[in-house]
Amino acid sequence: MAKQEKRLVEDITPMEQDFAAWYTDVVKKTDLIDYSSVKGCMIIRPYGYAIWENIQHILDTMFKETGHQNVMMPMFIPESLLNKEKDHVEGFAPEVAWVTHGGSEKLTERLCVRPTSETLFCEHYANVIRSYRDLPKLYNQWCSVVRWEKTTRPFLRSREFLWQEGHTMHATAEEAMEETLRMLNIYAEFCEKYLAIPVVKGRKTDKEKFAGAEATYTIEALMHDGKALQAGTSHNFGDGFAKAFDVNYLDKDNKLKFCHQTSWGMSTRIIGGIIMTHGDNSGLVLPPAIAPTQVMVIPIAQHKEGVIEKAEEIHNRLKKIVRCGIDTSDQSPGWKFAEYEMRGVPLRLEIGPRDIENNSCVMARRDNGEKIVVNLDELEKIVPEMLADITKSLYEKALSHREEMTCDAHNMDELKETSATKPGFIRAMWCGELDCELKLKEDCDITSRCMPLENNAIDDKCVCCGKPATKLVYWGKAY
Amino acid sequence: MAKQEKRLVEDITPMEQDFAAWYTDVVKKTDLIDYSSVKGCMIIRPYGYAIWENIQHILDTMFKETGHQNVMMPMFIPESLLNKEKDHVEGFAPEVAWVTHGGSEKLTERLCVRPTSETLFCEHYANVIRSYRDLPKLYNQWCSVVRWEKTTRPFLRSREFLWQEGHTMHATAEEAMEETLRMLNIYAEFCEKYLAIPVVKGRKTDKEKFAGAEATYTIEALMHDGKALQAGTSHNFGDGFAKAFDVNYLDKDNKLKFCHQTSWGMSTRIIGGIIMTHGDNSGLVLPPAIAPTQVMVIPIAQHKEGVIEKAEEIHNRLKKIVRCGIDTSDQSPGWKFAEYEMRGVPLRLEIGPRDIENNSCVMARRDNGEKIVVNLDELEKIVPEMLADITKSLYEKALSHREEMTCDAHNMDELKETSATKPGFIRAMWCGELDCELKLKEDCDITSRCMPLENNAIDDKCVCCGKPATKLVYWGKAY
Repeated sequence: MAKQEKRLVEDITPMEQDFAAWYTDVVKKTDLIDYSSVKGCMIIRPYGYAIWENIQHILDTMFKETGHQNVMMPMFIPESLLNKEKDHVEGFAPEVAWVTHGGSEKLTERLCVRPTSETLFCEHYANVIRSYRDLPKLYNQWCSVVRWEKTTRPFLRSREFLWQEGHTMHATAEEAMEETLRMLNIYAEFCEKYLAIPVVKGRKTDKEKFAGAEATYTIEALMHDGKALQAGTSHNFGDGFAKAFDVNYLDKDNKLKFCHQTSWGMSTRIIGGIIMTHGDNSGLVLPPAIAPTQVMVIPIAQHKEGVIEKAEEIHNRLKKIVRCGIDTSDQSPGWKFAEYEMRGVPLRLEIGPRDIENNSCVMARRDNGEKIVVNLDELEKIVPEMLADITKSLYEKALSHREEMTCDAHNMDELKETSATKPGFIRAMWCGELDCELKLKEDCDITSRCMPLENNAIDDKCVCCGKPATKLVYWGKAY
Repeated sequence: MAKQEKRLVEDITPMEQDFAAWYTDVVKKTDLIDYSSVKGCMIIRPYGYAIWENIQHILDTMFKETGHQNVMMPMFIPESLLNKEKDHVEGFAPEVAWVTHGGSEKLTERLCVRPTSETLFCEHYANVIRSYRDLPKLYNQWCSVVRWEKTTRPFLRSREFLWQEGHTMHATAEEAMEETLRMLNIYAEFCEKYLAIPVVKGRKTDKEKFAGAEATYTIEALMHDGKALQAGTSHNFGDGFAKAFDVNYLDKDNKLKFCHQTSWGMSTRIIGGIIMTHGDNSGLVLPPAIAPTQVMVIPIAQHKEGVIEKAEEIHNRLKKIVRCGIDTSDQSPGWKFAEYEMRGVPLRLEIGPRDIENNSCVMARRDNGEKIVVNLDELEKIVPEMLADITKSLYEKALSHREEMTCDAHNMDELKETSATKPGFIRAMWCGELDCELKLKEDCDITSRCMPLENNAIDDKCVCCGKPATKLVYWGKAY
């Protein structure tokens, strides 16, 4: 037993020693993913996929509550269709996979495997939208997309990944703007309330925006190592694509007008964000809302009479209100503790002969290691409260971590010093010029993460050129 | 109003006139699908996708209840991996799409877009299965697959389609056989209980089995026009793939043994089966379990005081127990009746001033046109009963249709006569020789659909060669 426990802990590289190795150890050793002979693509194993299913379920409910409908578009895009919007094709063509043959025949036109589906949705919308009565159209699809990345990492950057992509059409620019922000807010609410990940909501600079969009909005989260993760994006396309694809409608005034469009997406990348926000040197720490198992019941001295029966009774009771598991295998309790700790199960419930005598059990929290004794009659009350408290604690811990790792810089000296010595977000004013943005990238190796929606100016001049500036920007190194 | 109603009915070609045109009209006019510039692929629109989501939800629950877990495999298969099992590659290579370039670079090895994922699952299983303790492995994935078909039809045959593919590994041949039949039974139960589609469960002949399988089991349904539809298949691979991919385990006796494997799938094709089993000349008739809207509330004389309020009150009550919609748009009641009839909504609920006075409403069934008056206090009791009765009636109607369209043939004259004049299943004995099977295809243009599990011999000699025969076969023309 001692040997096996040791194995588990020793297997994971401490994050202080090598954060990237820690991350890879965690995703592999907790059976989230596996590699295959398809280079750059990952296999999402049952434990990882169950997390994704929980994410899907919550997000899909939020989407439907706001009037969105799911559809399926083809996974292929003919080259001529991809080419219709100039900025878009320039952004994506270098990184798509091309299908050139069907069976033994060469195709007359190459098809790319979708890297994103704006072009397909536009073509369809042009077909089905006739009048103002058909608007808005609020579609979403759950699928996988392909981008031929050079370097890949599980969840964070993979040649194929799962996501949802919402694509909507509206009568007016105002409605499209409302939708863009509505979905940004849904992503932010999802991250903060369910994943316990605090995010900064903001707008991307033109340099960082989506290929073909008028404006891109983002939620940015800060990882343990001080690097930023773009966790979800929402784009306003104005009528740019609509003009390129002839998506128009007959308005009430009998005039033909172009539609205004948005798209927004969140992907399996967010699983990487969960790991790097909450995980520790013992492995995963999963927020209860998306943990495949929320409570694991572990019998102590299970060979003794009545122990397994009592454990199963508790399991059956809790199964009705939470995702509850039980481990009655012949592994030792110590092995089981270490195993489910590594897998990030939020709550462990220990039940042995002495507990049974006292009509109680021991409850141990994964997030802070706290153990409390709980009266068995109160389980149905205490367990949900405890899970809610874990979410709250995880959020507060992540928020104070982010606050500690966020600095202000008022001039280039401060900025260089901070970016060289202190990982995290740097807040600094920007004049809006691309030159300054590029210089910060060159001199400090940081990129603009976003211009926060709550624009509390910390100064009145650009950190780089000193010219008047009204835009606050979060800068940082990013995944 | 009269004009619009007429339009709807006139738009759908009567099935007696041209069944294929009827089918295409129905899928297009009820907004199930749309075409795109990607030849041979379909867009599944919200109404069609909502049906698929309901199918997914029911099947996924049945899979999980029997211990299966979902995963995600890559969508690509390297050519060398596809080539590992000889029969399999011969069956699929002629109809796969090949990716040859990533961005601007030519790949060193071609990748096919998965037509099915046995090879990927085998490679992964070889990686993760070590000992008998790791067995069985019961994985499933929901995804889309690609087969480069020459002729395509919405849902029935499409270059890309959605499906689920289960892939399992077992310690023994017996366990693999049990799993194969367990999943066949789940498919049959799903079709009969939820879709109201009666099926014949049986085994495929070697000629018709899946490329690389030891045995393929199928459920076969009979469509309105007398053609058969293979609605789901379950394959037993024995240890053939396991040997090709080195999927083995250390057994309790310390010996290295090969695993035994199954796979099973059901696809969006089943939506075509629903349409062609229950639909009529007015459009779709949807079984309640998968209907996106189960009950549609339509106010009559809605400009009169209190009508819309009452309709909304009923809608809000019913929403809690069924998928209920309401149409308060300014279209006429007649237009609405025709619209939701075409869309196959199982129950229509009409509520007007006189109904309100009587504390009642009119309920109209889509399947048989029956109308009854229901006391509003009894809605929560009557509606679910009615939906259950609709499912029962649909099933019985489809079953008696199949029975009427099933004939026995004892010799080639009978077989030729029946196959030339009467669409439907033909039951006939078969000796088991490929030659006889091929001759029936050539002389009568029919293929073997399956050898039913309930093998009630109708004769003792082969319908073709006259030699002793013990196998009963369902023959027919198929989609």
